Amino acid sequence: MPINVLFSARPERWETYQEPLNKAFKGKGLDVNLATDIPPEQVDYIVYAPNGDMNDFTPYKNCKAVLSLWAGVEKIVVNQTLTQPLARMVDHGLTQGMIEWVTGHVLRHHLNTDLHVLGQDGEWRDYVPPLAQDRQVTILGLGALGTACGQALAGLGFPVTGWSRTAKEVEGITCLHSNDGLSQALNNSDIIVLLLPLTGNTENLINSERLAQMKDGVCLINPGRGPLIDDQALLKALDTGKVGHATLDVFRIEPLPTDHPYWAHPKVTVTPHIASETRPVTAAQVIAENIQRGEMGKPFLHLVDRTEGY
Amino acid sequence: MPINVLFSARPERWETYQEPLNKAFKGKGLDVNLATDIPPEQVDYIVYAPNGDMNDFTPYKNCKAVLSLWAGVEKIVVNQTLTQPLARMVDHGLTQGMIEWVTGHVLRHHLNTDLHVLGQDGEWRDYVPPLAQDRQVTILGLGALGTACGQALAGLGFPVTGWSRTAKEVEGITCLHSNDGLSQALNNSDIIVLLLPLTGNTENLINSERLAQMKDGVCLINPGRGPLIDDQALLKALDTGKVGHATLDVFRIEPLPTDHPYWAHPKVTVTPHIASETRPVTAAQVIAENIQRGEMGKPFLHLVDRTEGY
Repeated sequence: MPINVLFSARPERWETYQEPLNKAFKGKGLDVNLATDIPPEQVDYIVYAPNGDMNDFTPYKNCKAVLSLWAGVEKIVVNQTLTQPLARMVDHGLTQGMIEWVTGHVLRHHLNTDLHVLGQDGEWRDYVPPLAQDRQVTILGLGALGTACGQALAGLGFPVTGWSRTAKEVEGITCLHSNDGLSQALNNSDIIVLLLPLTGNTENLINSERLAQMKDGVCLINPGRGPLIDDQALLKALDTGKVGHATLDVFRIEPLPTDHPYWAHPKVTVTPHIASETRPVTAAQVIAENIQRGEMGKPFLHLVDRTEGY
Repeated sequence: MPINVLFSARPERWETYQEPLNKAFKGKGLDVNLATDIPPEQVDYIVYAPNGDMNDFTPYKNCKAVLSLWAGVEKIVVNQTLTQPLARMVDHGLTQGMIEWVTGHVLRHHLNTDLHVLGQDGEWRDYVPPLAQDRQVTILGLGALGTACGQALAGLGFPVTGWSRTAKEVEGITCLHSNDGLSQALNNSDIIVLLLPLTGNTENLINSERLAQMKDGVCLINPGRGPLIDDQALLKALDTGKVGHATLDVFRIEPLPTDHPYWAHPKVTVTPHIASETRPVTAAQVIAENIQRGEMGKPFLHLVDRTEGY
């Protein structure tokens, strides 16, 4: 009897994922019936994105796990009907894409390439930046993405500090935690990258008080979650010069409304939520791996801790 | 008796280098008299940059080596009076700075960050670039700089091909050589980085014939030497779309004249010869090391092959 896997996401995602998923299942030797409509009580696994139609998990009484297509699960964990085990997406392709985006934008600020990209006016501005070894980078959040980005930057010679809620140890990164650790992580950094999950504890973490702890002229890069930042506080800090530049990929409302002050602010670069994009081929392999584990009675990978919310 | 080291470069370089050099000599336990004027026949070593006053090496009959402050020696090797051993600068700081500049600009083109830096107009352009693994990079030149940059890019996931005149083997890089190898290196690359020395063989290497061998829309990055490129041929290739973008750090005349068409071309980014900057502290250590080697009768590091010109 085949394993019934319900695909629940926006229709265009079905087109993108159907083939990679079936290939990945075949690659694992799994006999799977993958479909967008299966009688609820017959569903063994749900491949899920929260922006589709389905919000009530109650009828899926025999479902062994909900496998998210998204890395961030803050829109899923609040769903009270979801009692099944929930796994986040930890996609090699997404991680790799995030490493590239973060490294690219850290180097962009480090080298100040905008000076030249925006200044092709005939003036020979021969500013030589310091070496990476003299540019302190802090990563807030040491999950899969924060750790990978921090290590890539350390590999290029940047001294990297990482901060997480609970104590961690990561090779090549100076790890700090707790509230005291956060102040320290903020106050001696030239470039700060936000890669925290969005939880009750992290919402508006970057508020006026935290911004005041940062170095004058600090550069903020947010490929994590929009609500990590108190937008009004950031705009104020940009105007006073406390924050030298902000490159923001995620926002409370997306697409970011055309009249939002971030678009017009000369010290803000808006990018359109492209830093963390799940890549179908690699994501399908993660989902197949978890279904195989479920069928063999092994623990699922990337399970979400429902109390912590990530 | 102290070792007499003549410093011959522009006066502002003397201010920059005097202290780091004396520190580096002391660090090696060398008793050195470093000065800008020493009777020629008493000079043991010359620390040299070709844009200073001195052009006639004939009177320095007892000089054991000329130690260049520059990585590129094309302006020195043509000097017929220079018969002493000549060492190029291979500076860790310069190499590191080049890695950062090249990695930053390769990622800039890979991610197309200019799209956002120049397009803060409220339009949500959610173009997701391919992963680095699907972006072919070629480095022309596998000297110290080309090798270091190629390996840094390979470390970020780019498939990297390197080309050099003679056969080489470099870990993590597909190495090609000879004329056939060059055609192959050019014709399947998305991003091409020029890090060749300037010699009779490499001047105008990037001419209309070579440009025609490249992929449509290729991105060219030149932190090497200006005359590697036939400027008229490149401008034509930019206009036809053969070359999608060129980021150029070095030019035949520097500073690049304000009325040069590169400044105004929408597909060209001019940067002001900042990619390869010798860093005094690390460069001083290289010079001290070579003087120590000379005094101990050991072979000098980074000797220039006068026949090849690099």
